[in-house]
Amino acid sequence: MQKVKINKYTVYGINNVTSLLQSKKYDIDKIYIIKDSNSYLNKNLKSKLKNENIIYCDNKTFSNKFSFKHTQGIAAIFKISYLDFMINSDNKNLCYVIIDQMNDPQNLGQIIRTCECAGVDGIILPRHGSVHITDTVIQVSQGAFFYLDFFIVSNLNNAISYLKDNDFWIIGIENSIDSEKWDDIDYKGKVGIVFGSEGSGIRRLVKKSCDFLATIPMSGKTNSLNISAAVSAILFERNRQLLK
Amino acid sequence: MQKVKINKYTVYGINNVTSLLQSKKYDIDKIYIIKDSNSYLNKNLKSKLKNENIIYCDNKTFSNKFSFKHTQGIAAIFKISYLDFMINSDNKNLCYVIIDQMNDPQNLGQIIRTCECAGVDGIILPRHGSVHITDTVIQVSQGAFFYLDFFIVSNLNNAISYLKDNDFWIIGIENSIDSEKWDDIDYKGKVGIVFGSEGSGIRRLVKKSCDFLATIPMSGKTNSLNISAAVSAILFERNRQLLK
Repeated sequence: MQKVKINKYTVYGINNVTSLLQSKKYDIDKIYIIKDSNSYLNKNLKSKLKNENIIYCDNKTFSNKFSFKHTQGIAAIFKISYLDFMINSDNKNLCYVIIDQMNDPQNLGQIIRTCECAGVDGIILPRHGSVHITDTVIQVSQGAFFYLDFFIVSNLNNAISYLKDNDFWIIGIENSIDSEKWDDIDYKGKVGIVFGSEGSGIRRLVKKSCDFLATIPMSGKTNSLNISAAVSAILFERNRQLLK
Repeated sequence: MQKVKINKYTVYGINNVTSLLQSKKYDIDKIYIIKDSNSYLNKNLKSKLKNENIIYCDNKTFSNKFSFKHTQGIAAIFKISYLDFMINSDNKNLCYVIIDQMNDPQNLGQIIRTCECAGVDGIILPRHGSVHITDTVIQVSQGAFFYLDFFIVSNLNNAISYLKDNDFWIIGIENSIDSEKWDDIDYKGKVGIVFGSEGSGIRRLVKKSCDFLATIPMSGKTNSLNISAAVSAILFERNRQLLK
């Protein structure tokens, strides 16, 4: 397995840092804690701290270093080594969410949170033309980021071909009356579900490589469901089918 | 019908102002347009402007008056007269979404957008202890706000009693293993669907007045689905049942 890129990130808050520690997936560089803050006094958090490099500091030192507002007095700096995309489970209902060209970090953070709650196994993002994992994305995901696998790929179509070679069905979600109704699709088994950008949907070539195209018919006048709301509707329809 | 309160709001952007004009629901006070801006040159928008009080101005005058960033050179000031809650349709599948104690205007804006796309008839908010309609809420709703009915009520339990007296079933959504699975609930017919705050859920007395309590089982480790994601999962499950 080839490490493609190492990035450094910062997360804030008791929940996020607890999730980071619990997931045991990432190299933690340093943890800054304000003395006598909520984080300093939190017993659950304290029980999870082992051999990390912890720096206890005062309010001023902390706020000189970190400009983020809602920290609860804790910040953790950690590294992510993005790996090449590899299917890493033999779950018969494995599910990857594939994001084609999303621009809004808030939306991506919300989608990560929904994917984690809905039991998705990983998220695939294209290296170019899309928002990447940033501190904001991780923060908005409320800890969910640490429990999902992320893959940043140079070419979405290659990733989709690789999934197809491994017996996945690829389902593209778009806003089009020509597509199948979202609940007429069978989400059981190994699936890759592709969501496009809010403005322009899934790119033509990516769409072409989907086995099915599904749509959620709108009942109102605005006809513009937020992409993170669409993700939620689709993933819980998948769960409904899996739980039946 | 008694008018309870008149509030003034400002919306920005071509889509929002177009929706405001199209909905014909609200008194428009003034519309400010920057000369030669995208809004000034937009033909669709121009075709919708009739006898409104329009003020054409330069960039500087506009930005002195409005601090909001993404305006496309247009701002509309309008009034809302909140009415007492009255059922205003004989649709046999009438659906009201009832929000108990939400705090985040971004979330409320997203929920409004999802409700409109999912064909909900109106949203009921309590006067106290919850975020209200603000400029931010309207902006985040991306025009959806103008196509839904809003009711601000002094007492949610009274509003729920009124719905029950009019043959509605009341369904509360909560995060609890004791509740029924969300897709085991029948959403057909007249329904009121109650969502609580993210932190503490639906208040005890409001929960007591629900006919059914439903839950969306989580499949991940974080167990904290965003409330707007839950709204989307529930409303499109309702639509799935209605379209069957």
